Amino acid sequence: MASHPTEDLFPRGFASDNFAGVHPQVMARIAAVNHGHAMAYGDDAVTARAQAAFSRTFGCQVNAHFVFNGTAANVLSLMAFQKPYGAVLCSDLAHLWNDESTAPERALGMRIIPLRSMDGKIDPAALEEVLGRGHGVHGVHPVALTLTQPTEVGTLYSLEELRRLIAIAKLHGLGVHVDGARLGCAVAALGIGVHEMLVATGVDVVSFGGTKQGMLCGEAVVFLTPGLGEDFPYWQKHNMQLASKMRFISAQFEALLENDLWIENGRRANAMAAHLHHSVRNLPFVKVAFPVQANSVFVRIPPTWLEPLQRETFFWPWDEREGLVRWMCAWDSAPEDVDRFVGTLQNMEKRA
Amino acid sequence: MASHPTEDLFPRGFASDNFAGVHPQVMARIAAVNHGHAMAYGDDAVTARAQAAFSRTFGCQVNAHFVFNGTAANVLSLMAFQKPYGAVLCSDLAHLWNDESTAPERALGMRIIPLRSMDGKIDPAALEEVLGRGHGVHGVHPVALTLTQPTEVGTLYSLEELRRLIAIAKLHGLGVHVDGARLGCAVAALGIGVHEMLVATGVDVVSFGGTKQGMLCGEAVVFLTPGLGEDFPYWQKHNMQLASKMRFISAQFEALLENDLWIENGRRANAMAAHLHHSVRNLPFVKVAFPVQANSVFVRIPPTWLEPLQRETFFWPWDEREGLVRWMCAWDSAPEDVDRFVGTLQNMEKRA
Amino acid sequence: MASHPTEDLFPRGFASDNFAGVHPQVMARIAAVNHGHAMAYGDDAVTARAQAAFSRTFGCQVNAHFVFNGTAANVLSLMAFQKPYGAVLCSDLAHLWNDESTAPERALGMRIIPLRSMDGKIDPAALEEVLGRGHGVHGVHPVALTLTQPTEVGTLYSLEELRRLIAIAKLHGLGVHVDGARLGCAVAALGIGVHEMLVATGVDVVSFGGTKQGMLCGEAVVFLTPGLGEDFPYWQKHNMQLASKMRFISAQFEALLENDLWIENGRRANAMAAHLHHSVRNLPFVKVAFPVQANSVFVRIPPTWLEPLQRETFFWPWDEREGLVRWMCAWDSAPEDVDRFVGTLQNMEKRA
Amino acid sequence: MASHPTEDLFPRGFASDNFAGVHPQVMARIAAVNHGHAMAYGDDAVTARAQAAFSRTFGCQVNAHFVFNGTAANVLSLMAFQKPYGAVLCSDLAHLWNDESTAPERALGMRIIPLRSMDGKIDPAALEEVLGRGHGVHGVHPVALTLTQPTEVGTLYSLEELRRLIAIAKLHGLGVHVDGARLGCAVAALGIGVHEMLVATGVDVVSFGGTKQGMLCGEAVVFLTPGLGEDFPYWQKHNMQLASKMRFISAQFEALLENDLWIENGRRANAMAAHLHHSVRNLPFVKVAFPVQANSVFVRIPPTWLEPLQRETFFWPWDEREGLVRWMCAWDSAPEDVDRFVGTLQNMEKRA
Repeated sequence: MASHPTEDLFPRGFASDNFAGVHPQVMARIAAVNHGHAMAYGDDAVTARAQAAFSRTFGCQVNAHFVFNGTAANVLSLMAFQKPYGAVLCSDLAHLWNDESTAPERALGMRIIPLRSMDGKIDPAALEEVLGRGHGVHGVHPVALTLTQPTEVGTLYSLEELRRLIAIAKLHGLGVHVDGARLGCAVAALGIGVHEMLVATGVDVVSFGGTKQGMLCGEAVVFLTPGLGEDFPYWQKHNMQLASKMRFISAQFEALLENDLWIENGRRANAMAAHLHHSVRNLPFVKVAFPVQANSVFVRIPPTWLEPLQRETFFWPWDEREGLVRWMCAWDSAPEDVDRFVGTLQNMEKRA
Repeated sequence: MASHPTEDLFPRGFASDNFAGVHPQVMARIAAVNHGHAMAYGDDAVTARAQAAFSRTFGCQVNAHFVFNGTAANVLSLMAFQKPYGAVLCSDLAHLWNDESTAPERALGMRIIPLRSMDGKIDPAALEEVLGRGHGVHGVHPVALTLTQPTEVGTLYSLEELRRLIAIAKLHGLGVHVDGARLGCAVAALGIGVHEMLVATGVDVVSFGGTKQGMLCGEAVVFLTPGLGEDFPYWQKHNMQLASKMRFISAQFEALLENDLWIENGRRANAMAAHLHHSVRNLPFVKVAFPVQANSVFVRIPPTWLEPLQRETFFWPWDEREGLVRWMCAWDSAPEDVDRFVGTLQNMEKRA
Repeated sequence: MASHPTEDLFPRGFASDNFAGVHPQVMARIAAVNHGHAMAYGDDAVTARAQAAFSRTFGCQVNAHFVFNGTAANVLSLMAFQKPYGAVLCSDLAHLWNDESTAPERALGMRIIPLRSMDGKIDPAALEEVLGRGHGVHGVHPVALTLTQPTEVGTLYSLEELRRLIAIAKLHGLGVHVDGARLGCAVAALGIGVHEMLVATGVDVVSFGGTKQGMLCGEAVVFLTPGLGEDFPYWQKHNMQLASKMRFISAQFEALLENDLWIENGRRANAMAAHLHHSVRNLPFVKVAFPVQANSVFVRIPPTWLEPLQRETFFWPWDEREGLVRWMCAWDSAPEDVDRFVGTLQNMEKRA
Repeated sequence: MASHPTEDLFPRGFASDNFAGVHPQVMARIAAVNHGHAMAYGDDAVTARAQAAFSRTFGCQVNAHFVFNGTAANVLSLMAFQKPYGAVLCSDLAHLWNDESTAPERALGMRIIPLRSMDGKIDPAALEEVLGRGHGVHGVHPVALTLTQPTEVGTLYSLEELRRLIAIAKLHGLGVHVDGARLGCAVAALGIGVHEMLVATGVDVVSFGGTKQGMLCGEAVVFLTPGLGEDFPYWQKHNMQLASKMRFISAQFEALLENDLWIENGRRANAMAAHLHHSVRNLPFVKVAFPVQANSVFVRIPPTWLEPLQRETFFWPWDEREGLVRWMCAWDSAPEDVDRFVGTLQNMEKRA
């Protein structure tokens, strides 16, 4: 991993949407609920209102629960399908597989199986292949499929692609989870609402991103299938994900869902990624690695550029040896940030 | 469990210090760090400053890590002593035993053994008894002792009591953990600093409370013994306790430690509990159940009083059948809150 | 723990029924099935016959599965009631609590809670007390009660005592398990068949001892409640308890159940314990510690006797400081073994 | 999975080496130690002798422990390298990945990562690739490599191939485990002793097969690296793998190691597989799928042949749709078994 600066808050860059701060409307709502006392552990009115807002957002009655971070949202979502001899199927590029340490195995007591992906999206043939292998008590039994929308490499499943994978999963009795840490980017880019994209397609449960979409801390686990996850509060407790002063997480979600701020934040991040993409795609030394469909741009640059470029504007390498890097826009990315960064790239091109 | 109201934020009462909001200085600091971008996952300057503040507070080099809630702080502290055939010893009144579901067993893969307590404090004879039973590979092996200061029933271990229990533990090779969710109350009440109380007595690791001491969310795991807990960042990750926008937790701790705000908050809560205690101890129908040494008052009241009293000012019963209840003060408790509540009690006395 | 000899097979003594060898009829049956090939993992005819024999023994259709040892039988029985926030209630003298390391917690992901016992039997008041404490998501939820028959100290639950504890458990929705590692001793002593003792009283699942009742290796998990434990073969596999050459375990059970050999073995062991008890109860320095109802005799002897006595005939101390020791008879204990041992004791008495 | 007969012991076939019975010399030794009493849990003289025999077999001081089955041997071997955020690397054809349910994840609390294999052997490039990805606390950390010798498809790692993979593993600080469920076949086929093959190459720990090599039940975990696995008896206990009447497992190993019976058994099985291979390789409808180097023959046959052929002599399909099947020889396979089976195949060829 490349060395990186640890100075205080540095200027906006393209490292990750979790380098960004808190959206002002979210911050204002936190302050607004900071008076008097409130029931702890989610038994307060702010939480009830935020939960109701999720039902409005999804266009039907859903059950939303709030946890601390994205790993927890994914893992606790999958508890709804837990069997002690079960397995969860995910993309070989999924956050669940690459970025959550052993949390899934340890908390779920199940195996995680990575499936071959193309442009970050699970290959339906790979899914069918793994589901075709019965092995009685000896093998693990797939119980759930998890899809990431947008994917880890900034691509999107079309409605048709979602339907196809979900159909295969359902045929084999699997539950379906969507990791929507940046769901607003997908909704904004596809122009498809969450009801059509997730409810109507048969998704059972969603990790609905808070932190990356503009909050300070907090993610939502949203059960779309009625009756699913009824023991969730217990799982939340024993997984150390129950906030005592819950109102302060709930208030953030209330602000985020109000007037679709989360989609607006996604739209802005997408637009900045598109701007960045257009500005660099014709640079001779910059090779775009994946279709740019949401808020991130993956490119291959000369490996020697990495360090000097990171020094100016920090970002994460994906494969240092190959010079594959990720540039990610956030809700607060601005055109001038892109223009400044592109200017630096253009200078490096000239010197190359 | 008694029914309870779920209206919006209600007036300050005596339910718990986690019903209180965020101290204004803490809230101001959150807002102050909300500009620009910052390295995620704690690799930022605010976090470094907060960690340094912990070393200053403890009067020596310590290693502080920030997690989301109190259960996580306790469980992750104890990871430092984990053996797959190990056991953790705690008071039979400990939060670890009574209020953290199966989190300790599931995350640690160890047994939790409750020890007999007196006024909430572990009986040294009970500790010695359990340590005297060797049973080879067949029995579990105690690896750690955890003490709560102040205890769950608002009492305090004196320095002498701490030393005695710690000596027994160390003699048997156990690690020692202190659950200090409300540590400021103990420091304020005993007039003993954390260096003398925890470092000098040989405590290895402390759960240092954030939420109950005035924060929005966040607890610290503070390793006092050099070299202990070196893998902590990994444990934090796989236990789903690593915040991405860490600066917002760190900033709260910076504010909390500055000018010993946490001790000041504890002192205020203690003072209000003392005021409440003095106001009720002579009421004929109110029997004080434990010595009042910190910020809570446990009393026995006529069981029929419970519901009407809770309706006016919500609080938690400890044993409904016995009428044993807990009244707890917070950093924001005020004399008028106490006076109003005592007034209600006096009216109930009159009607009794 | 006292030092002990490690010479080769030594003469029959009173250490434990697991020091004994394999009953000749059991050994003969192992040899009898050792020809040709057989389906592995229990899909063979010997296993089917042994399973049918269990239904005959219990007087109704039961589902019997065979695992390797007693810890596994207990833990896998309890999987039938598993919830990730659950707890199992047992006697504070139970094998599950004292002799199975962390296996219950690690394999079940639940808490084990020891209840106060009298003469090794759970005090009904202690059971009611722990079941009366509701604590929402914060506390663990008892899901099962496990009883040991005969108990670890060689006493027996009467039919009435069983009924009372089971009634309390069922009232609170708990599953009921019986650890019958030495069940034949109980059946022989009480003169009550397993249908009346376990099926009619509402027990859900039984650990039916093989090893201690005369086998080489193997225990049975017998589900009495129809439909319970349907996933058992999967649990067996992921808990590493599925024997590939299963016919050799099954054949042993066939021999053990045939003509009630297991009850006969228990009867003999009980008779030898009774003989030992009668021979020592009037010795001035030997104080019988628990009622002698099955195949073990617990006594207090002068602590200085321990080592010389163990050197002659090895046995396990229960509490060395107190001189509390266990003398246990096995299916192969003989009157001359008892007489020889009593002779030694009488000599020690004379020298005392 | 194809349907299969469940009649009693059926004639010797080619299903698996765990369909075979117990070698007469092993059975005789079991009977020989069945007299008198012995210390339980392995503290007996037979066990000490068997452990010493392992040191003689490996040509150096090793630490051998005996567990019940192969899954347990693999999982408990890997406990020596356990970290809660760790991962174990294995072949995508490994028993650990395909045939042990979730036992590895649940008992170890680690991730299992399958690596691309060629003819059942791990591709060194795949190993290097996965070791090249550092990802701080976010990703899992590989702690061990496990190799199967012979592989699941009956091929063998040459000494050179072993050295290369082990060198890569050691370079990255990984422990190395060998799953030797059928190790005798490898030793017999390669003509290389275990000291040269496993000790001199730097393997840390071996699962040494008992059951498949001619025993009734029992596998050995053999630590080759001094000091490794010192806590093994504790892991054995909490993993429910400690036999009380251990002498009966130990006696089997004594017999198996005496005069290298295990290698002799492997040699015979190999010879029968070679005979089968030579007899079928020129049949037009039978396509050999992997090099035949040990005791199994993998072939592709017309899928319609499967059921009639299984009815006559049961065997396991590997991929029914493709007609890929496994024919495996055991210690008791005889030339006439092969000839009879080949005769059937020839008849099917004629009718085809």
